Amino acid sequence: MLPEEQLQHLKYLLAEIADLIYISYVLGWDQQIYMPLGGTQNRAYQLATIARITHDKQVSSELGRLLDTLQPYIAQLDPDSFEARLVKVARRKYEKEAKVSAEWVAESAMVTTAAYEAWGKARAENDFSHLEPHLEHLFDLSLRYVEFFAPYEHVYDPLLDIHEPGMKTRELKAIFDALRPQQVGLLRKIAEQPQVDNSFLYQAYDEQKQWDIGLELITKMGFDWKRSRQDKTLHPFSTSFGLGDVRITTRLSPNYLPQALFGTLHEAGHAMYAMGSDAALDRTPLFDGASSGLHESQSRMWENLIGRSYPFWQCFYPHLKEVFPSQLGNISLDTFYKGINKVQPSFIRVEADEATYNLHIMLRMQLEIGVMEGTIKVKHLPEAWNSLFQEYFSLTPPDNATGVLQDVHWSTGLIGYFPSYALGNLIGAQLWERINQDIPNLPEQIRRGEFASWREWLREKVHRHGSKFEPQELIQRVTGSKIDPAPYMRYLEQKYRSIYGF
Amino acid sequence: MLPEEQLQHLKYLLAEIADLIYISYVLGWDQQIYMPLGGTQNRAYQLATIARITHDKQVSSELGRLLDTLQPYIAQLDPDSFEARLVKVARRKYEKEAKVSAEWVAESAMVTTAAYEAWGKARAENDFSHLEPHLEHLFDLSLRYVEFFAPYEHVYDPLLDIHEPGMKTRELKAIFDALRPQQVGLLRKIAEQPQVDNSFLYQAYDEQKQWDIGLELITKMGFDWKRSRQDKTLHPFSTSFGLGDVRITTRLSPNYLPQALFGTLHEAGHAMYAMGSDAALDRTPLFDGASSGLHESQSRMWENLIGRSYPFWQCFYPHLKEVFPSQLGNISLDTFYKGINKVQPSFIRVEADEATYNLHIMLRMQLEIGVMEGTIKVKHLPEAWNSLFQEYFSLTPPDNATGVLQDVHWSTGLIGYFPSYALGNLIGAQLWERINQDIPNLPEQIRRGEFASWREWLREKVHRHGSKFEPQELIQRVTGSKIDPAPYMRYLEQKYRSIYGF
Repeated sequence: MLPEEQLQHLKYLLAEIADLIYISYVLGWDQQIYMPLGGTQNRAYQLATIARITHDKQVSSELGRLLDTLQPYIAQLDPDSFEARLVKVARRKYEKEAKVSAEWVAESAMVTTAAYEAWGKARAENDFSHLEPHLEHLFDLSLRYVEFFAPYEHVYDPLLDIHEPGMKTRELKAIFDALRPQQVGLLRKIAEQPQVDNSFLYQAYDEQKQWDIGLELITKMGFDWKRSRQDKTLHPFSTSFGLGDVRITTRLSPNYLPQALFGTLHEAGHAMYAMGSDAALDRTPLFDGASSGLHESQSRMWENLIGRSYPFWQCFYPHLKEVFPSQLGNISLDTFYKGINKVQPSFIRVEADEATYNLHIMLRMQLEIGVMEGTIKVKHLPEAWNSLFQEYFSLTPPDNATGVLQDVHWSTGLIGYFPSYALGNLIGAQLWERINQDIPNLPEQIRRGEFASWREWLREKVHRHGSKFEPQELIQRVTGSKIDPAPYMRYLEQKYRSIYGF
Repeated sequence: MLPEEQLQHLKYLLAEIADLIYISYVLGWDQQIYMPLGGTQNRAYQLATIARITHDKQVSSELGRLLDTLQPYIAQLDPDSFEARLVKVARRKYEKEAKVSAEWVAESAMVTTAAYEAWGKARAENDFSHLEPHLEHLFDLSLRYVEFFAPYEHVYDPLLDIHEPGMKTRELKAIFDALRPQQVGLLRKIAEQPQVDNSFLYQAYDEQKQWDIGLELITKMGFDWKRSRQDKTLHPFSTSFGLGDVRITTRLSPNYLPQALFGTLHEAGHAMYAMGSDAALDRTPLFDGASSGLHESQSRMWENLIGRSYPFWQCFYPHLKEVFPSQLGNISLDTFYKGINKVQPSFIRVEADEATYNLHIMLRMQLEIGVMEGTIKVKHLPEAWNSLFQEYFSLTPPDNATGVLQDVHWSTGLIGYFPSYALGNLIGAQLWERINQDIPNLPEQIRRGEFASWREWLREKVHRHGSKFEPQELIQRVTGSKIDPAPYMRYLEQKYRSIYGF
């Protein structure tokens, strides 16, 4: 075969794998949104079967040989070309997958379906014991996974690498170690100032109107409904079944406006990233984001950097008041803006303000590393959570539903994911500084409800590349430096100085 | 390996195939209900990939060898045992699948996704030309499929065999030839009598209330919601993703009560068949119904033999009047009963009464056979439809949406399926006669809203066997004779004599 034909065949094999992965996402989407409870066992088998077949394809000797054979051909191409990157990323994935046993893959897929159900029950009944055996199994699976990659520098590295390709726990800790005292210092300054009022956010808000306004906002921001839809779920997420079908979900709280409002913006940010991939990337391992952290940078940008900004509400607050006149009629724009940016340590990560959010992440990472290193036992996670929470926030969760059970991630096998949220905040602010340099009148554009040049910037610089570049590499290319907490701290300082007047 | 171990391994291979088939049904369900339009291309690839992989597994030499090796072991088992039937049915499927090329399978899966979209557009715009090229392709695929099974007795046989295992076109024609003059004769007798009134069914009926009453009825009939859910779709269907997850769909018409009401009963009947399989049959080729005709017998039983019966509405009509007081307050039970059983030739199959329904089927079968035999061209289907419609019903459809475009089947590749509907009517009546012999006070039970003994009879005699037996074999076992149109004609004669008084 000519190299061009080999490349064609490689694309065929990779497209088949991509289809299978998309299919598993369809199964997961349905499971979390519409599947009747009785379907749990069947769905577990289906996910295990598809995971096993996907793995078989991912580690097939045919694929391995083809990747080898193509090396000399690829070596003479532009290293940034689609083809060169495709082979590079495919080879990286192949080598990783080849280390993982088929048994581990199938077992892992079987576990998460039941664990997800158990999490729902545990959370609803505020009883950790329903989840505990599943979590034991899932952490055990993570420990076994990590061993496929021995020797490693840190036991957490192979987990981190799933979500942040190429990144080491050492780097992550260095970033967080620099960040934590600055965030704590900022919180102290804020705590010394008079608190702002956000009680108006805690009123009865009609759920249908919440739903509608969320959709309306993201539509105005340029969301592509031809390729998407929104559904309700217990724990919001976005997911993509290919370039043409990228879905979002939301959760409505009848007595708290921000949850659905900013949740919808958040998931829309994820979805726009996937939808912004170059068409050639669809059905290849290059499709969608460079890392979970990059992905979170996009969602947090829609949610916070834009969605909780003053210019954004200069544009949309009059309309929001029209939708909720009895709740917001007497609330000024300034009061609203300060209210949605109120800083106060609280129990629930997804509702945390931007100043405390990363501390929620550091806490979770510390627990994950603790279990992985063997210093924390799964059965002690509730107490470990509460005591760390006291240390970080000087608060103790009233119950496990508000504590260790609040997040879905562990029960779906996502151990090592949380750091990506914090990285997303940092990356988002880094990109934001850069965008504002490139588009100096961006605040003015947002005030006028114009989002095209910002969206186009992101598409051009970030979205279209999918995962052609590793996260650090991409950020370096776009901003001129690697992941750096400084822009985030500058952003927080400036924002909260204006709100709290310290 | 010991035979027991071989059998275990066979079950593993068959379970994997079953999972893949369930997964393809999940993809199909989502496509018809929730998928955004932009997902069409991705979904087509996904369905093609899963179809190709399923086919690979279905014709694997490993499976073939195992089925061979197990022959002597199976030969000494009770031929009606689960194991003997499992191997027999698996072998039959293996031998059929092995004749079909992988290319055909993948191409076929690719085509139907686009064809389904095109059908929706063609129907909405009343323009056959949108569908025509897809239909050309699909009939061409059917012709190529049939050739895999040459030599055959009749070109329609291999298509019929997909839905009615073991049945020949010759048998089918014999049944229909006996039936048609009797149905036409009955229609003539009815036409000579004064027509009944059903205008009260054509009023504004609140859609939410229609939805609710449908669910309420099937709940009272014993529907298992733990393993099911209902969604809205363009063309109602039921589908199963395993024993624990069997779903139904419905379509609401704001100005016509029967559509959703009887549609929900119909799909619930299908779903209860699948949900009634013995647990051992799940994830094997024995799961779910013996044939499409058997399946339709169950849905038509819920819809018609029970759902349009006098005792059923003696039980539920008072409640229905409470739900729709302004529409039905002045309508007596007798008038309602006659109205929902009004016989009148009309254009739409799914709304046809029991006396004309089978004629709609015979028309479709005649067209399908015509195209397969080459005497009708796909592009002439609209005219062929209309001219046959005139012959059968002395009516001409006002447009193609009301004519050749009304059904989804051809656009999803279901060519050769329609006869199963008519067979379902016949089989339903045959079973119904037998049930009424075994449970002499069944009408009285229905009047009291008791459905347990009837449901249990069906589960015991029909549902639990899944597809262990071929359709003719199963009906012979349960009723003592093969498929026979006489009970259906006796049922129709008796019912319509009481309604029309001839």
